[in-house]
Amino acid sequence: MRHTILLSVLALLCASAFAQHEKITGVTINPDNSVTFRYRNPKAVTVEVSGEFMQGSAPLREVDGVWTYTTPPLASEMYFYGLTVDGQPILDLNYSMVKDIPRWMNYFIIGGEKGGLYSVQDVPHGTVASRWYDSAMLQMRRRVNIYTPPGYENSKKSYPVFYLLHGNACDENSWLDLGRAAQILDNLIAAGKAEPMILVMTNGNPAQQAAPAYFGDTYTNENTRPGIAPFPSTFGEIISFIDSNYRTIRKKAGRAIAGFSMGGGHAFTISKDNPDLFDYVGLFSAAGSRISDPAEKQKLLDLKKSGCKLYYIGCGTEDFLYRSVLAYNKQLDEIGFPYHFRETPGGHTWGPWRIYLSEMAPMLFK
Amino acid sequence: MRHTILLSVLALLCASAFAQHEKITGVTINPDNSVTFRYRNPKAVTVEVSGEFMQGSAPLREVDGVWTYTTPPLASEMYFYGLTVDGQPILDLNYSMVKDIPRWMNYFIIGGEKGGLYSVQDVPHGTVASRWYDSAMLQMRRRVNIYTPPGYENSKKSYPVFYLLHGNACDENSWLDLGRAAQILDNLIAAGKAEPMILVMTNGNPAQQAAPAYFGDTYTNENTRPGIAPFPSTFGEIISFIDSNYRTIRKKAGRAIAGFSMGGGHAFTISKDNPDLFDYVGLFSAAGSRISDPAEKQKLLDLKKSGCKLYYIGCGTEDFLYRSVLAYNKQLDEIGFPYHFRETPGGHTWGPWRIYLSEMAPMLFK
Repeated sequence: MRHTILLSVLALLCASAFAQHEKITGVTINPDNSVTFRYRNPKAVTVEVSGEFMQGSAPLREVDGVWTYTTPPLASEMYFYGLTVDGQPILDLNYSMVKDIPRWMNYFIIGGEKGGLYSVQDVPHGTVASRWYDSAMLQMRRRVNIYTPPGYENSKKSYPVFYLLHGNACDENSWLDLGRAAQILDNLIAAGKAEPMILVMTNGNPAQQAAPAYFGDTYTNENTRPGIAPFPSTFGEIISFIDSNYRTIRKKAGRAIAGFSMGGGHAFTISKDNPDLFDYVGLFSAAGSRISDPAEKQKLLDLKKSGCKLYYIGCGTEDFLYRSVLAYNKQLDEIGFPYHFRETPGGHTWGPWRIYLSEMAPMLFK
Repeated sequence: MRHTILLSVLALLCASAFAQHEKITGVTINPDNSVTFRYRNPKAVTVEVSGEFMQGSAPLREVDGVWTYTTPPLASEMYFYGLTVDGQPILDLNYSMVKDIPRWMNYFIIGGEKGGLYSVQDVPHGTVASRWYDSAMLQMRRRVNIYTPPGYENSKKSYPVFYLLHGNACDENSWLDLGRAAQILDNLIAAGKAEPMILVMTNGNPAQQAAPAYFGDTYTNENTRPGIAPFPSTFGEIISFIDSNYRTIRKKAGRAIAGFSMGGGHAFTISKDNPDLFDYVGLFSAAGSRISDPAEKQKLLDLKKSGCKLYYIGCGTEDFLYRSVLAYNKQLDEIGFPYHFRETPGGHTWGPWRIYLSEMAPMLFK
């Protein structure tokens, strides 16, 4: 109570002075794109910063109880960062946060080419809706996030649909929060680089109704449950829901599917099991994609025969799945299955996945 | 990078073990609705917890490097809480968080009557959409959150609209994140207590396009700017946008407006300046409502004459605006203006505002 009354009263009376007082951490993006971290705590013994912009960590130096560290100039990107104080990770409670798998993380964006694409620009914005559909197969209400492009509501035309799937322990919010999917599409569409399209971001954990955080739950990794249908086998329900609730182009030329990690495995399975559904398939750091027997091989040949226009495979060279992705590519080569391979620096992280979305979306529906 | 690669790889391989290892804080709601806070840090000297469930703060006690404190059994509610370690506020990075004014806060919900109403239950859920409208008066694109009730999409009927306004330094996300508006309406509608209605949650800071957090910005208190139109004067644009994009009941019997703090002041101004727009008005801990001159008095008499069906005034007895709310009620008494006054324990906080929403919504559109 104390905290909140204080917050509200003070915020009402003199919010900026209060914020100034309350703020013990700070991030400043300098004109040269170096970043200064600041942490006020005279009692701390060691303060370190780590983040996606460095290997390992770096110590902050203390002057008059204020600890600081300035990075070298950073490339345009969205970066996670974290402070560790006397061995304990802490969050900057005044700064931007997203939830990545089990925990909240602070982040900042350095403007420029990539960071600009991931940021909210002054361009027309699509609508992002969180809706619920009834899954007969999973016998539950399930949450799905849907991006409709600028102009959707005031048009009568039908739009193509890009289904975006997530990795293990992620959820229907991940492509929005960490993948910056709405910003990327807004910006690509405004620049005339991508066709206006609907994005559908499902929850790929068939044991979940929605993101655990949506229920106020702490982290859970329950992505399946004995006796429950595997997620790919239920995907037809989602397509039906979208096709009956949105003005969609209801044929394979109007559908794309992509996912990262477990979601890349889902995209692999769903596309090969349903060769007539998607003209565009994206496997980003995909887990579990391999041609295991003649039946699998035949399914991929059917997908090829059906005229799948783009089979996009992306993987970071430091990704722990890099070798298995290369092995899958080799299997595709052996059966003459055409694909587009994009390899980037980076590991099994959002940096490469945002790049693959940014590069794949302009290749769709043209 | 290190952090994220580690997170992703480990999460993929053995997420729960990792979460176990990573977790240094914890909240357990015990069967008797007492709550145990846990914090692992052998080096800490003092650890305290504070929250909306207590006055002041309480010390955690350490055994083997793990600090704990258990509250008495708590009443059903949603509660903010915070730990302070050696004088520094910290966040529980594994637990539920919302942004309240300038900073992120952890929270938990105790089930039961109120907490149940504020939680996601297994009932039909409305859709929550974040959309953008063009404001000609403010010359900017602006973000608005819209809740449509369960069944809206598969119906042809028109729905009444409840406009929910926010307080100073809050934004269009506040009623959803802290006010639990979608959960409250889902649950009231499912119980047959409230009519299905559309909720419109605007950004009441005319200098802002959207919540600062949406841009990845740190906290800002810029709620106006010299030369910019006051928010209430622009409200007609929002009503036009909603009426032309949703199946609404386009008359005063189909419109309600309410807000807290600054938003209560907005609801006061908008309703008296437009006596033909709303049959239902709610002022929660309203700031600035008073009858200052004969013209103001006449506007309120016009509102009364127009047949405004409910003028709901709510305030906590510990609210710093309590006396000014009582003074306003007295002014209403003097002009014979009928109103419904609801006073609750509590201060200028979300606890009372959630109660007022929960109690006012069932009184609307009947």
